[in-house]
Amino acid sequence: MAHVSDLVNTRPNISMTAELLAAERLNSTFDLVQMGLFINGEKWCQLRQQALEIIQADPDIFDMTQSYYMNREEQLDMILKTEKRMAELLITKQISHDVALAMTYLLDASGPFRLHRSMFIPTLERQANEEQKKAFLLPARNYEIIGCYAQTEIGHGSNVRGLETTATFIEESDQFEINSPTLTSTKWWIGSLGIAATHACVMAQLIVKQKNIGVYPVIVPIRDPITFKPLPNVNVGDIGPKMGFTTVDNGFVNFQKVRVPRFNVLQRYISISRTGIVTRPENIDPRVTYSTMVFVRAGIVNTMGRELAKAVTIATRYTAVRKQGGEIGNETPVLNYDIVQFRLIPLVAKTFAMLGMSHEFYSQYERCKQNIDSGDFSMLKEMHAVSCALKKWCSDTAVYGIDTCRHLCGGHGFSIFSGLNSAFNNIYPNIIWEGDNFVLAQQTAKYIIKAAKSYLETNSISTNDPTSLILSLYNPNNKNVPWKSISASEMVQNHNLILELLACRFSYFAYDLTLKIHYQNQSWNNSTIAVQVLSTLYSEYMICMYFKRHIDKLQVTSSIYPPIAQLFKITALSFLTRNTGELYTMGEDYALNYKFINQLHDQYQITIKNCRSIIVPLVDSLGIPDEKLNSSLGRYDGKVYEDYMTRASNEPLNRPGTGSKIRSDFYYKYISNILSPNKTPSKL
Amino acid sequence: MAHVSDLVNTRPNISMTAELLAAERLNSTFDLVQMGLFINGEKWCQLRQQALEIIQADPDIFDMTQSYYMNREEQLDMILKTEKRMAELLITKQISHDVALAMTYLLDASGPFRLHRSMFIPTLERQANEEQKKAFLLPARNYEIIGCYAQTEIGHGSNVRGLETTATFIEESDQFEINSPTLTSTKWWIGSLGIAATHACVMAQLIVKQKNIGVYPVIVPIRDPITFKPLPNVNVGDIGPKMGFTTVDNGFVNFQKVRVPRFNVLQRYISISRTGIVTRPENIDPRVTYSTMVFVRAGIVNTMGRELAKAVTIATRYTAVRKQGGEIGNETPVLNYDIVQFRLIPLVAKTFAMLGMSHEFYSQYERCKQNIDSGDFSMLKEMHAVSCALKKWCSDTAVYGIDTCRHLCGGHGFSIFSGLNSAFNNIYPNIIWEGDNFVLAQQTAKYIIKAAKSYLETNSISTNDPTSLILSLYNPNNKNVPWKSISASEMVQNHNLILELLACRFSYFAYDLTLKIHYQNQSWNNSTIAVQVLSTLYSEYMICMYFKRHIDKLQVTSSIYPPIAQLFKITALSFLTRNTGELYTMGEDYALNYKFINQLHDQYQITIKNCRSIIVPLVDSLGIPDEKLNSSLGRYDGKVYEDYMTRASNEPLNRPGTGSKIRSDFYYKYISNILSPNKTPSKL
Repeated sequence: MAHVSDLVNTRPNISMTAELLAAERLNSTFDLVQMGLFINGEKWCQLRQQALEIIQADPDIFDMTQSYYMNREEQLDMILKTEKRMAELLITKQISHDVALAMTYLLDASGPFRLHRSMFIPTLERQANEEQKKAFLLPARNYEIIGCYAQTEIGHGSNVRGLETTATFIEESDQFEINSPTLTSTKWWIGSLGIAATHACVMAQLIVKQKNIGVYPVIVPIRDPITFKPLPNVNVGDIGPKMGFTTVDNGFVNFQKVRVPRFNVLQRYISISRTGIVTRPENIDPRVTYSTMVFVRAGIVNTMGRELAKAVTIATRYTAVRKQGGEIGNETPVLNYDIVQFRLIPLVAKTFAMLGMSHEFYSQYERCKQNIDSGDFSMLKEMHAVSCALKKWCSDTAVYGIDTCRHLCGGHGFSIFSGLNSAFNNIYPNIIWEGDNFVLAQQTAKYIIKAAKSYLETNSISTNDPTSLILSLYNPNNKNVPWKSISASEMVQNHNLILELLACRFSYFAYDLTLKIHYQNQSWNNSTIAVQVLSTLYSEYMICMYFKRHIDKLQVTSSIYPPIAQLFKITALSFLTRNTGELYTMGEDYALNYKFINQLHDQYQITIKNCRSIIVPLVDSLGIPDEKLNSSLGRYDGKVYEDYMTRASNEPLNRPGTGSKIRSDFYYKYISNILSPNKTPSKL
Repeated sequence: MAHVSDLVNTRPNISMTAELLAAERLNSTFDLVQMGLFINGEKWCQLRQQALEIIQADPDIFDMTQSYYMNREEQLDMILKTEKRMAELLITKQISHDVALAMTYLLDASGPFRLHRSMFIPTLERQANEEQKKAFLLPARNYEIIGCYAQTEIGHGSNVRGLETTATFIEESDQFEINSPTLTSTKWWIGSLGIAATHACVMAQLIVKQKNIGVYPVIVPIRDPITFKPLPNVNVGDIGPKMGFTTVDNGFVNFQKVRVPRFNVLQRYISISRTGIVTRPENIDPRVTYSTMVFVRAGIVNTMGRELAKAVTIATRYTAVRKQGGEIGNETPVLNYDIVQFRLIPLVAKTFAMLGMSHEFYSQYERCKQNIDSGDFSMLKEMHAVSCALKKWCSDTAVYGIDTCRHLCGGHGFSIFSGLNSAFNNIYPNIIWEGDNFVLAQQTAKYIIKAAKSYLETNSISTNDPTSLILSLYNPNNKNVPWKSISASEMVQNHNLILELLACRFSYFAYDLTLKIHYQNQSWNNSTIAVQVLSTLYSEYMICMYFKRHIDKLQVTSSIYPPIAQLFKITALSFLTRNTGELYTMGEDYALNYKFINQLHDQYQITIKNCRSIIVPLVDSLGIPDEKLNSSLGRYDGKVYEDYMTRASNEPLNRPGTGSKIRSDFYYKYISNILSPNKTPSKL
């Protein structure tokens, strides 16, 4: 067979995709570099650039374009090669931990050392005492041991108290005996365990003198670091193929009465004496762990923005050059159709909202952390509630946003070369881990309802966090809303008023549900649906509030102010028009009638259309490099079909050598004897 | 490493998943076999059973449990083995075409001969003349040639008129010359082309004497059936990895002036004489092709129900046995939580609605077809509009319903062994092919608005199809709705009234949009969002109308009537409460106020809860065999974790032999030199 990439050069490309994309860029009205720095933050822009230079300098190790053709074993080999190189760079201090994270982001694939860095080391930092840090943390940082964090069991997910693995104190030998008493107690989903780990930080029920002390971390050796064989009575393996995360070695482990020294129980929050006396240090506030959870969720929020940025970049660039319909021979780019704009542009706006909001949410977290360090925990509960809501909203929006981008690319979105399928698969678990999104909504709602009840009972607020402030302002007696005397078209010109409407809508539903639960005997179980809605309304307010806070730092005369103001408006209006049943329910009391609501719809559509001309420059300003996109459809240079054809020609079924061998095998085994059962086919 | 499946036997399973599932089955209130026959249809139940017996009798060929570990080449090998066997059974008439379809359904994977059967042969049946049938159709049926249907080009999807491939008449040699003039004219996505096809049915612009005649099918030989090498000037290959459809050989082909005899242009709808005179038979009505499209979409509707049935079976069974939260040591199956019921049970209801409705929609199609055969096309346009709407609704609901099922299974949904990931990936393209869902909504809306306009102008209807009837009944002057004097709780007791409300809601929006477009100068492009909503409202009415028609065939005394009536109610109420902004917009004129709408919400929740106790028997009655489920989580016997552990132990990384080899390679290449850079590690 002629090698198909030859074909690319024998055919003219009259679709002019590169030229079309270049023309879109002429429409820019703003400074792209300034926008990139403003929305991504200077620090991230620098890290990403540093990481990109390392990757580009060493394509033999870091080029990921071939990964799309590989089976799992080959992908693992590829990623381990990068992991080894990154570990060397880290050990020799040629790169920082932050650069390593940026490299992982750009490679768009996590490997078997990921959880060693992101979970094992941080757990030791937080929960080991000084002696244990010397014994475990230092070797971990030098990659003399590789660890994983083994909490989840095959039969136990979010309910940590229900874990079945035990660690029983054996006083005679001064040891703990780790045991997996049942099938369902098998540790499962543990990243870095399937292939890489020499050690596991095992979360187990601590049993001392027949008494259950609670769930605590124990460091358990898993594999011999010299032979790499599993240690005796440790059954360990990889959990098998997954939807995404192909290159992560999620593993399982089951212990048959494995003994470790008492020393291996991490002792910052608990300590067990030689004779089995359990003590807990007095200066430790258990609420500190909440603060860690807030931080982890803030990280997810930020990551979701960066991953959605990849998807909207691909979909925007491809819809700008993909022609369909209109005059034959002069077809229209699909981005000119309303139905494409209406699905794509709000997602671009939400990407900016996620990234922009995230800076302010981190700042708020920092303030909260400083207060905690000085003994003031007053901000913590609200931060926890907001972080749950934002984690849910951002992960839902990013996962299903990537899906929308895939659909926007038409059939080609279904090709692996779109870059959107691995993106969808890899970020999908964010809707489940660190608290399933449906469960998180309940946690958020519990906090809100408690705060609303407190206001109803005391007519005052106890803290001045954002939630309490709006619950106080839009209490059930205040129907004097500031948009009463103006039209919706006028209202949306004012960011403050948009935010007020979101706040008012949230408060209305918060009090409505609080009254039902606390004064009308509606059970919590019967409030399930309302609880999910409440969390959404809360997130929508918080996203806009923090995003606006970021925008308000800009001079209105800056070239980037007008486009970002449009994106704010689109985000807010998408929230307000999402399910107008909510506004109708509030009704005339709040000046929300058919006319007003209809104008919101109109303004939404108008603002989307206004952004059409600068949407390509907007995604360009996000600055996602081609290495991260790894996409025929989203290439910066717009050479979509040339690249697509080249990638197809590299498919193993087509490559000279491999291709003819595979085809020949298939033909002789399964096809020739069907086609001509009575003939002996000649050799290929 | 100890082989991990040993572990299964060394640990007690105290989670009692099998016992829990068995206990759920004791709650059944109805005859499962009768329900299965009623909802699936007797014919399908028989075909499925026949197919199942063939598959079970020959596990060496048809066992698909190993497919989850395979790379693409291995999966192709596996599926070609089944294809070969199926072709032999077909050729020797041991099975019918319908049984082959049922086998493909149960194997849950399509292979390289699929499009030969589903597109190449049907196109020949419809578009070849008698002589051509002898030349192409007979050999195709005997698998002497294998064909594909090459329409889509890399740069041209739904816009058939825009195809660039040409077929130019060469009078001197009495041939057509097939040419791909540009890069974007490359045929792309063509199933059966990447590996299997000897022939392609190429859709090309026919050019005769410098005149473009339009797009017509031409049979072009692609590969030598003896050597299986591509023929000269035919560049053909596989398009590479995809999101799903791993075992289908979607291919590309590009022609460099390839000549075929004039005879190869399929001549049922056009004929070209030896001297290039083009004629079209007079007795052919172009509307007949619409009828084919209706039939193809009806097939998708039905398939979506059967695929969603797999997903809800898995999610229902697993949530019934997956315990989380509640008392430690006595945790609660998650199916007892409202938030799980609220996401799962409406999907079960919609599965029954899709399957049930489908029987009546087919019957309506048959009536339409009979009318067409006697020259009466009056039903066709409505059938086309309905088929577009139903294809959109059913494919959206099935694709995102499978996703919901995956999320309902928690982290384990993310494992390939859930069976839900391949299901999602494989049916995803249904939202794009046979008309992208967003485009189909526009086609539906165009028909509706035309019908509404016609009623407004004439005050009468021209046909008595269901659409015209409800547009006539709920015309803008009729606000005398039958639920005016009763509560919503009373209303939902009456299926007729529920249907009336759905009809009234649809008609209200149809007229609202018609008035805006035709009397208030709103452009079509500015109506994009409203058009999508209109199509949804229309589908929701049609689903319920046809589903009710099916249910009405039952005796109300039948044991299966009460559960199916509940499922009808849940489906309808999920539609009515989806976005209550729609009902509020209609307002007091239609007796739709806050109280009424709130009661709809309450009734929805009550009805869902009422179904909890019989939800496992309900999915059992769908009758999806374990072979199709191919899922640890959804097994009929409930032995979830045993099966999950066994499948994980078969992962190549764990298998004795392969596993130690791969691990040893990884260790020496990438891990040992990081762990101990100065040591020489001993052999594994």
